[in-house]
Amino acid sequence: MPELISPSLGGVDLNLGILDNNDQTAILNRGQIERAGARCINIMSSPGSGKTTLLERTLAEFAGTPRIGILEGDMTTELDADRLRACGAPTVAITTGRSCHLEADQIADGLRKLAEDGGLARFDLLVIENVGNLICPAAYDLGEHARVVLVAVTEGEDKPLKYPIMFHGADLVVITKLDIAPYLKLSVDKLKQNIVQVNPTATVLALSAETGEGMADWQDWLRAQTV
Amino acid sequence: MPELISPSLGGVDLNLGILDNNDQTAILNRGQIERAGARCINIMSSPGSGKTTLLERTLAEFAGTPRIGILEGDMTTELDADRLRACGAPTVAITTGRSCHLEADQIADGLRKLAEDGGLARFDLLVIENVGNLICPAAYDLGEHARVVLVAVTEGEDKPLKYPIMFHGADLVVITKLDIAPYLKLSVDKLKQNIVQVNPTATVLALSAETGEGMADWQDWLRAQTV
Repeated sequence: MPELISPSLGGVDLNLGILDNNDQTAILNRGQIERAGARCINIMSSPGSGKTTLLERTLAEFAGTPRIGILEGDMTTELDADRLRACGAPTVAITTGRSCHLEADQIADGLRKLAEDGGLARFDLLVIENVGNLICPAAYDLGEHARVVLVAVTEGEDKPLKYPIMFHGADLVVITKLDIAPYLKLSVDKLKQNIVQVNPTATVLALSAETGEGMADWQDWLRAQTV
Repeated sequence: MPELISPSLGGVDLNLGILDNNDQTAILNRGQIERAGARCINIMSSPGSGKTTLLERTLAEFAGTPRIGILEGDMTTELDADRLRACGAPTVAITTGRSCHLEADQIADGLRKLAEDGGLARFDLLVIENVGNLICPAAYDLGEHARVVLVAVTEGEDKPLKYPIMFHGADLVVITKLDIAPYLKLSVDKLKQNIVQVNPTATVLALSAETGEGMADWQDWLRAQTV
């Protein structure tokens, strides 16, 4: 197994320059997407919060309208990308290898690949599914227009308080796996309160991609992102 | 909100020197713990896999034997540290702020604080609860003698394949939240197979800290770590 790319610089402060490069590329990505008449969202969460499952059901129910393209981030494997391709969405897999998050230049490459087969103008909405990690991806603008953070009821009420940077940066927080809540010692209301405490301006939805409860509000939100 | 410490160096290869420093401190930590007659385990997982809940039940059932000290890592808050203190375990909270993992020098500080109140020889086992992150903590030796990775049944069967570096480095993998498995579309056997595929030599246990199922094997494993 290769060593991971170091997630910290210790005391060395090189962040600014690196983030500047990333931010510049993110701005170019955003411009390219807008010129194509599309918009882009960046979905982030812990591993196993249900990002792919939510997208599978969404793609099936939308049935092609709005037109969605996927940029699918994972450390290894194309398991998730294959699941989304099976739903009929053009999907580019971006495997990060040793790295714990997506960066804007990987999205730039992904956009190039997605454009090869008919241009970006064939999409209303591009969806980035980030690497499963509730910390590091928050630091990287990818060129998205909105950030979506998922948190499953199975992760507990306290996650917004313990991982505030991710939740603070969200435009939308989606509470997932609502169908499992009855089997847990958890108050969904308390989880919502903790989200609002960290981010008073975010939209908060709760749903189950299993039963379909709450899916309509999520789909309305997605449609409202398109131009 | 502060910016996160950059989890990547882009193309700049500074890893080796930084990891060397960390590794040197880890070796010193390990020596200090061994001279006190204790051993140390490093528990890692995604956010919300049940690290703290498992430790709460373990501390309650052990009731002081073996003697356990805790080094509790979190980005912010002492919520988890307070839960473990309530179980009677001497606990030092290490808040990492913007960083996504613990490093060996933070453990060295923690050991100093834990030793202030009666020395390290009062412990048989030191337990590090790492920051919730299935990627970055795997890159940092903290001075532990064994690595434990938790994965909840709610996270899905595919996590070992998608986050192989973490699972590959584990001495023990604990499947948690077994009581919720009946409500999920998941095969615990398939999850076990995927763990073994990535790491054929790890010990694999499955348990529920809620019902107590499987707790005895986990406790036997913990006792076997002490000298």
